[in-house]
Amino acid sequence: MGPRGPAGSRLVCPRPLVHSGAMSDPDLSLPPNFRLETPAGDTRPRQVCGDCGFIKYDNPKVVVGSVARWQDRLLLCRRAIDPRRGFWTLPAGYLEIGETTAEGARREAVEEATAEIEIDGLLAVYSVPRLSQVQVIYRARLLTPAIAAGPESLEVGLFRWEEIPWAEIAFPSVRWALADFRKVGDAAEFAAQSNPPGEVGNYL
Amino acid sequence: MGPRGPAGSRLVCPRPLVHSGAMSDPDLSLPPNFRLETPAGDTRPRQVCGDCGFIKYDNPKVVVGSVARWQDRLLLCRRAIDPRRGFWTLPAGYLEIGETTAEGARREAVEEATAEIEIDGLLAVYSVPRLSQVQVIYRARLLTPAIAAGPESLEVGLFRWEEIPWAEIAFPSVRWALADFRKVGDAAEFAAQSNPPGEVGNYL
Repeated sequence: MGPRGPAGSRLVCPRPLVHSGAMSDPDLSLPPNFRLETPAGDTRPRQVCGDCGFIKYDNPKVVVGSVARWQDRLLLCRRAIDPRRGFWTLPAGYLEIGETTAEGARREAVEEATAEIEIDGLLAVYSVPRLSQVQVIYRARLLTPAIAAGPESLEVGLFRWEEIPWAEIAFPSVRWALADFRKVGDAAEFAAQSNPPGEVGNYL
Repeated sequence: MGPRGPAGSRLVCPRPLVHSGAMSDPDLSLPPNFRLETPAGDTRPRQVCGDCGFIKYDNPKVVVGSVARWQDRLLLCRRAIDPRRGFWTLPAGYLEIGETTAEGARREAVEEATAEIEIDGLLAVYSVPRLSQVQVIYRARLLTPAIAAGPESLEVGLFRWEEIPWAEIAFPSVRWALADFRKVGDAAEFAAQSNPPGEVGNYL
């Protein structure tokens, strides 16, 4: 385990400028009394308060989702929100506090496509270091083909492999997950996949 | 994807009281101008700034680690830090910003046991909702048996299965990972494991 303790901190309402700041940009996120130093027992510089020694850690985020199938069709959702509004993605989103990864994947399917899914395997764990994201993607079955666009989707659809709109896929990791599903298919037991060799989720 | 944007925010050095606050305790972490409300397009209440509408999200944390073996022995580390100082754990810790999960697992093995490991499979993904943790644990091989206690370890050791100090294991998820490793052994291809049925990582 790392040395970090509870990430307690007080927030002050940020200025609009800050809203556009990168998730972990210390310049945008820290007051002047914080400075960069490596705490005792730690291995890299952290933002440390010069007054009381409080250490502010940045943490990667967890995305949970699924490749959910009904017979020979896969569920895709056309994004109603940025980034990549209008492009197709899997039902996926940020894991919530106090939620298991499987619970989160089921919740995202409901939220984005009103889809009830049954998880039947961990398809892949992807890392997207550029975004400091870990994506936990399950293989799942739709319990019914009754799907509808949730508030974050413009439309949703069930696609045969040859019908997938490859030119309009939102993110590289969506392509990875679709390809990994194609690889494992309905196998009862399969190894979880990871990033394709050399790929880290950047746009080409 | 969820609706949250960049988690930009300004920090003010917290008082000592705050240091003992739970990771995501809104009372300890937010100024009075924030209030609990559900943003448009969101599904649950968030802490929202009453002045500018900035939304403060809490996020689960990612722990990465490994069950690393040398011949028929498994690497364990006796914790030099709280929580559970003096108890045995796997080389594991928080994923860093900009790091892949595999990179993080290798780094933790070096930091906690000066151990060089080669990852040879995703052993398990566990959820510990009580701590809002997702644990990504790999199966690995030690490249050499040369291990030594890092700054976060009192001692490190290589244990045969029957030598594992079960009564002095630090966390339930360490038991899960050891049992899951025992289950998959050296199998070339195996499904990633998850929490034992009904277990969420609470102490019994």
